[in-house]
Amino acid sequence: MARRSDVMEKIVSLSQKRGIVFPSSEIYGGLRASWDYGPLGIELKNNVKRQWWKSMVQGRDDVVGLDSCVILNREVWEASGHVQTFTDPLTECQNCHKRYRADHLEEAYEEKHGRPPEHGLADLTCVNCGTKGAFTEPKQFSGLLKTYLGPVEDASGLAYLRPETAQGIFINYKNVEQAARRKVPFGIGQIGKSFRNEITPGNFIFRTREFEQMEMEFFVQPGTDEEWHQYWIDTRMAWYRDLGIREENLRFYEHAKEKLSHYSKRTVDIEYRFGFQGSEWGELEGIANRTDYDLNAHSAASGKELNFFDQASGERYTPFVIEPAAGVDRAMLTFLMDAYTEDQAPNAKGQMETRISLRLDPRLAPVKVAVLPLSRNTDLSPKARDLAARLRKHWNVEFDDASGIGRRYRRQDEIGTPFCVTVDFDTLEDQTVTIRERDSMKQERISLDQVEGFLAAQLIGC
Amino acid sequence: MARRSDVMEKIVSLSQKRGIVFPSSEIYGGLRASWDYGPLGIELKNNVKRQWWKSMVQGRDDVVGLDSCVILNREVWEASGHVQTFTDPLTECQNCHKRYRADHLEEAYEEKHGRPPEHGLADLTCVNCGTKGAFTEPKQFSGLLKTYLGPVEDASGLAYLRPETAQGIFINYKNVEQAARRKVPFGIGQIGKSFRNEITPGNFIFRTREFEQMEMEFFVQPGTDEEWHQYWIDTRMAWYRDLGIREENLRFYEHAKEKLSHYSKRTVDIEYRFGFQGSEWGELEGIANRTDYDLNAHSAASGKELNFFDQASGERYTPFVIEPAAGVDRAMLTFLMDAYTEDQAPNAKGQMETRISLRLDPRLAPVKVAVLPLSRNTDLSPKARDLAARLRKHWNVEFDDASGIGRRYRRQDEIGTPFCVTVDFDTLEDQTVTIRERDSMKQERISLDQVEGFLAAQLIGC
Repeated sequence: MARRSDVMEKIVSLSQKRGIVFPSSEIYGGLRASWDYGPLGIELKNNVKRQWWKSMVQGRDDVVGLDSCVILNREVWEASGHVQTFTDPLTECQNCHKRYRADHLEEAYEEKHGRPPEHGLADLTCVNCGTKGAFTEPKQFSGLLKTYLGPVEDASGLAYLRPETAQGIFINYKNVEQAARRKVPFGIGQIGKSFRNEITPGNFIFRTREFEQMEMEFFVQPGTDEEWHQYWIDTRMAWYRDLGIREENLRFYEHAKEKLSHYSKRTVDIEYRFGFQGSEWGELEGIANRTDYDLNAHSAASGKELNFFDQASGERYTPFVIEPAAGVDRAMLTFLMDAYTEDQAPNAKGQMETRISLRLDPRLAPVKVAVLPLSRNTDLSPKARDLAARLRKHWNVEFDDASGIGRRYRRQDEIGTPFCVTVDFDTLEDQTVTIRERDSMKQERISLDQVEGFLAAQLIGC
Repeated sequence: MARRSDVMEKIVSLSQKRGIVFPSSEIYGGLRASWDYGPLGIELKNNVKRQWWKSMVQGRDDVVGLDSCVILNREVWEASGHVQTFTDPLTECQNCHKRYRADHLEEAYEEKHGRPPEHGLADLTCVNCGTKGAFTEPKQFSGLLKTYLGPVEDASGLAYLRPETAQGIFINYKNVEQAARRKVPFGIGQIGKSFRNEITPGNFIFRTREFEQMEMEFFVQPGTDEEWHQYWIDTRMAWYRDLGIREENLRFYEHAKEKLSHYSKRTVDIEYRFGFQGSEWGELEGIANRTDYDLNAHSAASGKELNFFDQASGERYTPFVIEPAAGVDRAMLTFLMDAYTEDQAPNAKGQMETRISLRLDPRLAPVKVAVLPLSRNTDLSPKARDLAARLRKHWNVEFDDASGIGRRYRRQDEIGTPFCVTVDFDTLEDQTVTIRERDSMKQERISLDQVEGFLAAQLIGC
């Protein structure tokens, strides 16, 4: 198997070539660690979000959705503790002036040596210039991005871009409980952009200042929280596996008690083997038991009672919250890396050559079906175009008549298209087409009027 | 028919009660003209976006999608002209200090009197305090929201939140043309949040500082631009009508030549009869011929050639751009207002009373099917829950056993659910259920195993 870091490099290059991910603002020299999603990238991203929404919201009778603002009243961030404590320890190598997050340096040391550095940063070496022990004392650096609303740029208009979607859920707890007539246990899910003033953005789309989250806050009766926490840890791991991530590239990471966030009783991350320099594994999703911290904080700050009255027992309590918080961009990267495959396949001359394919689950594949006329023949192309138009009513479809059929198959393999339908000269005679499956490259001859039915059976849940 | 302004008020109230739209940050006293979407609101919003994407991107062979960053390199906004010219004329009543956009005041006068005010602002009366001619000289006020990236809040980290998604498309023109192997004419569509420092946000979700756009930039050969412009004007109007907006509430508004934006050769708005105070009609979507302004501006500023080489003719040219730019939130408001209906229906005692229903197109309805056990009988509820779980695989489904059947029908009517399926005591005997249609209130008896098939035929395209 290829080294994980090589796979990452290949995904970066394939992404730019095929229109999955482009460096943002590229014509102006880019913007550090910013990425735009191209035609295939946005389809993949939408599919990841749709699968999450189906699994976490629409498919469940105990979860509903929400969509709160990026810019909330700034008191939200004061009450939640973000203004005071949402900071990262910033350090700088005094020799080469490269900036680092001190906690990341220490974690990388611990992963390599199996124990934390004895004398803290003094034991560490700058990976950029190789100097040892030249790091500055860490300074706390706010991760909140600020903006100013209204005509004057002063404190009266100060606002923050949300660093997580979760707080938008907590402040709407009562609204949702009442309008959607919910009883604990129930959850509120949300997908949306968040923004963080990261010290060290990087590693492709893994860590960016602007990113998209899929968060769900599940409200439970205190005392049942540990059981529900374990339920969501297992459920979320199963989601990644169900969508095709290999077991050996996933693991749990239990946060040490003394390093937990201020609101957390226990946090377990799902990690993926990204193969980054200095750190093989990276966080894919965090599943935290946030206790009643947030609802209590907002109750105290706002004077509103964010609690639940259980009519059956006559009890009133502040629910505990279990939070599975996933990153859309990280999930995309994971699905891309795990799908990347090189194997041997015959080219047009019958010689074996390396074939690249993205073995994405069909539910995630950006294009579900490619329709390919065998050649640019005046009879074949219109027939193929008609078929593409028919299939487009159901799925995202590509029509391609631009080169030899072998090259076009390779291109569809590279972007993960599960099925190619080829219209050839026999089609004109017997009204059948060839359907080729991506992974097995197996071809089947199907009657033109049965193409929708055949594909629908293969593309369930797409 | 009810007055339009009354319909708006009813929608605001229904939205809060049923969980469509909540005032944002409400527990902290709100944040001026900010709104969060509740469980039903986000489903409606997602449906509006999905219909646009199906119609404008996936359903066409000449348009692809894109998803660019909210925060781009700031040179993008210098080149596009936004830093210099994206301003609104701010004026203030010297008596009551209420702020207005001077252009909006003049437009409202013109709509009322059929001609512009002769002496400009001096002819106008403050609607807040009634004072005439007390407006300050308008000052140009930037609509760009700023933020600062990196550890120091100074000019080096200055960045803007995008005020439109369009520029993210222009700067990726070449990337997309090449990676997606496109030939002019073709389009690039994008859905996403934009931010504007509005002087006068308000009118519910019509004008907010944070809003979501559905924009498509269609690149055409110069000389064919006027024809394509008309094509997109007609196509976009047909989209709203197809999704159920009544003809009498839609109209075109042709921008006067002398008032066109700096980039536009011709702009036609689709307006909707919102019934705002002082202005009956409001912009729903703008369809502009942006010419080659943007691609030329970015070519000049970046030094990259954003043009197209036509292999067939051997010509190289900068494409003209036709832009249909719609607002997700405005479209939602339009669909809600047009769907709002009051009619007479019998209550549980057989007396006629006013029934409120949202006659949303089923493709837009937040909940497609409600499953209702006739009573909380121990045999009925499990059977109904099983059916709900089955249907949830295909659609967004509600299960409700909370009150009398009549009240539950009314609630589903109010949120626009096209079909209610009732499980009653006959179901236990003959395995049939009642399916009730929202608008006609017609009920049909259907065999349990045919429910999916019946609904699928009614919910095509959902």
